[in-house]
Amino acid sequence: MDDAILVINAGSSSVKFAVAEAGDHAVTTLVKGKLTRLDQAPHFTATTDAGEVVADTFWEPTGGRQEILFGKLVDWLDHHLDGHTLLAAGHRVVHGGTRFTAPVVVTPRVLDDLADLIPLAPLHQPHNLEAIRAMAAAHPHLPQVACFDTAFHAGHSDAAMRFALPRALHEDGVRRYGFHGLSYEFIARQMARVAPDLARGRVVVAHLGNGASLCAMFNGRSVDSTMGFTALDGLPMGTRTGSIDAGVILYLLDQGMGHETLQHLLYEQSGLLGLSGGIGSDMRTLLGSGRLEAAQAVDYFVYRTVRDIGAMAACLGGLDGLVFTAGIGERSAEIRARIGRGCAWLGIDIDPVANARGTGCISGAMSRAAAWVIPTDEEQMIALHAIEALKTAASDDRISKEEFFHV
Amino acid sequence: MDDAILVINAGSSSVKFAVAEAGDHAVTTLVKGKLTRLDQAPHFTATTDAGEVVADTFWEPTGGRQEILFGKLVDWLDHHLDGHTLLAAGHRVVHGGTRFTAPVVVTPRVLDDLADLIPLAPLHQPHNLEAIRAMAAAHPHLPQVACFDTAFHAGHSDAAMRFALPRALHEDGVRRYGFHGLSYEFIARQMARVAPDLARGRVVVAHLGNGASLCAMFNGRSVDSTMGFTALDGLPMGTRTGSIDAGVILYLLDQGMGHETLQHLLYEQSGLLGLSGGIGSDMRTLLGSGRLEAAQAVDYFVYRTVRDIGAMAACLGGLDGLVFTAGIGERSAEIRARIGRGCAWLGIDIDPVANARGTGCISGAMSRAAAWVIPTDEEQMIALHAIEALKTAASDDRISKEEFFHV
Repeated sequence: MDDAILVINAGSSSVKFAVAEAGDHAVTTLVKGKLTRLDQAPHFTATTDAGEVVADTFWEPTGGRQEILFGKLVDWLDHHLDGHTLLAAGHRVVHGGTRFTAPVVVTPRVLDDLADLIPLAPLHQPHNLEAIRAMAAAHPHLPQVACFDTAFHAGHSDAAMRFALPRALHEDGVRRYGFHGLSYEFIARQMARVAPDLARGRVVVAHLGNGASLCAMFNGRSVDSTMGFTALDGLPMGTRTGSIDAGVILYLLDQGMGHETLQHLLYEQSGLLGLSGGIGSDMRTLLGSGRLEAAQAVDYFVYRTVRDIGAMAACLGGLDGLVFTAGIGERSAEIRARIGRGCAWLGIDIDPVANARGTGCISGAMSRAAAWVIPTDEEQMIALHAIEALKTAASDDRISKEEFFHV
Repeated sequence: MDDAILVINAGSSSVKFAVAEAGDHAVTTLVKGKLTRLDQAPHFTATTDAGEVVADTFWEPTGGRQEILFGKLVDWLDHHLDGHTLLAAGHRVVHGGTRFTAPVVVTPRVLDDLADLIPLAPLHQPHNLEAIRAMAAAHPHLPQVACFDTAFHAGHSDAAMRFALPRALHEDGVRRYGFHGLSYEFIARQMARVAPDLARGRVVVAHLGNGASLCAMFNGRSVDSTMGFTALDGLPMGTRTGSIDAGVILYLLDQGMGHETLQHLLYEQSGLLGLSGGIGSDMRTLLGSGRLEAAQAVDYFVYRTVRDIGAMAACLGGLDGLVFTAGIGERSAEIRARIGRGCAWLGIDIDPVANARGTGCISGAMSRAAAWVIPTDEEQMIALHAIEALKTAASDDRISKEEFFHV
């Protein structure tokens, strides 16, 4: 029997999962899927890594009781993963705060500590933790590992971590954490394999998806990021505003806008969707539109990304390479080409043929700085972390088996 | 009799003024001064350009009636400016909105339009306009010219002007205006004289004072700036936070912080003052302090300035020169040296001897990009604008003398 890791990425209305076969230093995804419409009629879909649909079915409504859903999910896996034993569940948890700077095996105490961080990420953290609790209720003996989107950035300098606010707020946790850490860590690992010289240098990684951020990396470690306290800062995103003058928020409050309306505006109605006048939050839709508003939204996205690549290069004291990843970064040759032209002054010279191919090195032979496309895989990173965390826990006398999370 | 311009920079609790002798293409400051404690016992001070104190006196309380104070000011000038006739008053007005992209002779209609912009700059615009009204009441026949801190940035591209918000907000004026425009315009003029080649190139001007921002200039025109909708965005300042994740604001609102407390926090308790744990908002104080908190505040200021110089260089597609101006920029060789080291990757190489001298070109002979110190003088810029605006108005048939602002 081979070992397998169940990877869980739980959101407000859906749970994405993947199952990865655990090798010694790498993992192979066996199946991916998701559960949507959790509160209504749960819709369960799964595909193999080759793209074959192996499940597409509606489950009985559970009244939102996730432990029933997770029980059914594990039962389904038991029947469909011939020859594999689930070793653990690895969860994406958005916020590790200042304390959790590495993946951790979940115990009741850890879960309490993670719940204390809910005010720092009220839109995501509760769903991440609810999934851990539900899985513990469904399968009390399955170890669970929490992997944090913030952890990869934990080594930032004092200056990169602060806001210019009174120090008491910093002590209370109002600091620049950075996110997309599981993606950046995966890219750092991949770079070390496919471009080891570049991996040792000054690299800006552009995670451009529905959420978007940049990470300034030196020698595979995060030095700074465009995201800060929340996933709202930095680059414009599908529906999120990215960097915005705090004076705008004060103005909108002055105009009588309420807190919830404001939050909805900044998270759901802004970004590419807002810029394009409602044409869409998806880059493909905008690139395919002939309308001025769509063009302006794309122009803005490229302009701000180029601007912030300059800021990240400054944090690194120069640039050896630029790596594109995530939805837009991996799939839009046009956006890569435009960002590349904006970064010509940094020595980036993207080769059109290689860019159209869209994998590996896409810079020309004369390019002073390298440009790459490296697909990200946060699920693989979580699976690797889960395996590693279990090994560490097993060899660590301070953590007894009893401390694993058994409800 | 030579002509002179009275320059007014009116704030909430004080009015700064200067009188400039109007030449054909340049002006000479004759006297500078200020009125403080307007609402209590007004304190009037004035010095000549050579630094000689020519007034230091308390005036009778006026119950805050500024027209009485302006009447006394003009009377004092009548007695102390032998051989000069006041031609006009030029005012610094923080916000010109989307309409006023050049200095304008104030008429009642202009004043109404400027009052419509108060919501965009509630902390400054009302005081600017109150001073214009008071001067009109005191001296109905003195033409007045409004000069805008936003106007120099009016040529920004669509992408540089936007936030990633719904388009209706942009149409309503929620856009990135940029400020310190009178300072940047003065620097652009000076550069054209002292470094004409550089002036035609890609220059980042660092206006580093109690308020601080950067301007990306190409060929003497503003391309982008770190300040946005308000003077709160961008670099950290004496007590203002600069760029901050909007998620922090949502979090503080969630924690029950009220709007006014929030505004006071971001404008008055943050920046260098907040970072240093209350040691001070003044860079000299921090540089002279041996305490860790002061050092961290300075580190942060340098880090963020270097980071944003990278962002501005990206907007320009590279950097030909960096110009320091305003309080810190003109007077702190240490801060210039540290920012210069952070910009070594951009080709900046500051010469220690020239930097200690602190005027003109401070980069070494081998520096790939130039570094300069150019003192700014917003009062001179306003005086020059006032003269120009009067000439234009006098030669423009569309504006009759009657339209000048006579209350």
